[in-house]
Amino acid sequence: MTSVTNRNVTTKTACAIAQAAVDHAGNLGIAINVSVVDSSATEIAFLRMNNAFLPSMGIAKDKAYTAAGFGFPTMGWKDILDGNQQLQAGMVERPRVVTFGGGVPIFEGDILVGAVGVSGGSEEEDIACAQAGIDTVFG
Amino acid sequence: MTSVTNRNVTTKTACAIAQAAVDHAGNLGIAINVSVVDSSATEIAFLRMNNAFLPSMGIAKDKAYTAAGFGFPTMGWKDILDGNQQLQAGMVERPRVVTFGGGVPIFEGDILVGAVGVSGGSEEEDIACAQAGIDTVFG
Amino acid sequence: MTSVTNRNVTTKTACAIAQAAVDHAGNLGIAINVSVVDSSATEIAFLRMNNAFLPSMGIAKDKAYTAAGFGFPTMGWKDILDGNQQLQAGMVERPRVVTFGGGVPIFEGDILVGAVGVSGGSEEEDIACAQAGIDTVFG
Amino acid sequence: MTSVTNRNVTTKTACAIAQAAVDHAGNLGIAINVSVVDSSATEIAFLRMNNAFLPSMGIAKDKAYTAAGFGFPTMGWKDILDGNQQLQAGMVERPRVVTFGGGVPIFEGDILVGAVGVSGGSEEEDIACAQAGIDTVFG
Repeated sequence: MTSVTNRNVTTKTACAIAQAAVDHAGNLGIAINVSVVDSSATEIAFLRMNNAFLPSMGIAKDKAYTAAGFGFPTMGWKDILDGNQQLQAGMVERPRVVTFGGGVPIFEGDILVGAVGVSGGSEEEDIACAQAGIDTVFG
Repeated sequence: MTSVTNRNVTTKTACAIAQAAVDHAGNLGIAINVSVVDSSATEIAFLRMNNAFLPSMGIAKDKAYTAAGFGFPTMGWKDILDGNQQLQAGMVERPRVVTFGGGVPIFEGDILVGAVGVSGGSEEEDIACAQAGIDTVFG
Repeated sequence: MTSVTNRNVTTKTACAIAQAAVDHAGNLGIAINVSVVDSSATEIAFLRMNNAFLPSMGIAKDKAYTAAGFGFPTMGWKDILDGNQQLQAGMVERPRVVTFGGGVPIFEGDILVGAVGVSGGSEEEDIACAQAGIDTVFG
Repeated sequence: MTSVTNRNVTTKTACAIAQAAVDHAGNLGIAINVSVVDSSATEIAFLRMNNAFLPSMGIAKDKAYTAAGFGFPTMGWKDILDGNQQLQAGMVERPRVVTFGGGVPIFEGDILVGAVGVSGGSEEEDIACAQAGIDTVFG
């Protein structure tokens, strides 16, 4: 065996996820940025709601990168880092790694095919928008 | 007068433009990256077709930045730079400035509201995809 | 609806704000850098007092970016981040995001039209200079 | 002798130069970005006219840097580089070095005290705005 196979969200799927996340944010009355990446953390779709926080653009993209890169929700870092000060300080410093909620991996069955990152609301709202996006396709 | 007014593409408009550009690329049998920015060159929508050239992601984003920043198609640089060697050499080196075709400004009437940047095909194909995107909303 | 409308400080307004902030700093006997950006966080005016701290140039610009990008004073981050260690660590690391005082948004009525960032004095002095700048136009 | 003395434009002078350059641009019917730096190429004043070309912000700042750094107008590079292909290719590649017109050094008597960089119009218009700025103080 000389190669491995990766599975990745299509452009159409990524766009549908981003649009559903934006629709959910609209229902919550908030403005978000949402990025959808494939399993190699390459951006496939991005949407920004007018007047969403500007610095949140990069945060959304980095949450998607982190969730795709580690394969678990960025919210999961809380438990890992609590009580390990060296790891906490070190991970937070890593470029593009986000250790608070709003990045959620996308699984097709049990295969990682990408991730969604949302930023613009509270951690809970960001997570809800990301999940609404995923559920519209894989729910 | 303490302020001026700017107009910017909505998220829905930007997403429709990006999707129409992708559809046009599909019809041409090519794979593109497309970025849609507002009049301040802030990215509002981005779509990447699976297997489009990876370095073309940044080229698409920078074409959109250049077209929004100068207010004319990036193809227009050809005539401006021909015969002015210093300016030509200098502009090509500017960060994020792209001086070949594929970035097209979006006008609502005669007001600049954003720009589209496409990269992945030939200059002619990239321009055609960008224009197809704009035409789907403003045509 | 294919576009939204944004309002932005004029060059004349931004310059008057920067000059008034510098005058206030002179009265306080301190030397500051002051940056005024529009609602898209694009710099419209910058002034540096001779011998003001050099690294404060970037801090002033980033405070203006942060205040315009989030729409509230950078001083407001204190309450948001207290008690949320992951978010605190993460926000502090974000490029260009400043989570201490001296960045103040500019509102015309209830519309965000830009922001001022001041650095060179204490947090209280920086905020006072930024506010003096805004008050000279919108007070 | 353990130290040397440098002379630099004051904040008030730099601001007056930038404002006069902007006024001249207004008379010409163009929109510019203008940066004024001191003799160490540190930015002292910057003004951006609303809707001036966005990429010209960095070009204006870099023209001021280049003119202060070399002590002659950026337009002077044309004659130096013509016919020396290696030097031309090399200088154009240098970060922040601009080899076309619009950067003009500021002299007080025969002492370099700073430089102005203008971008937004043609080379001739940019130079005229920079010179109008300098003339308002030193003319």
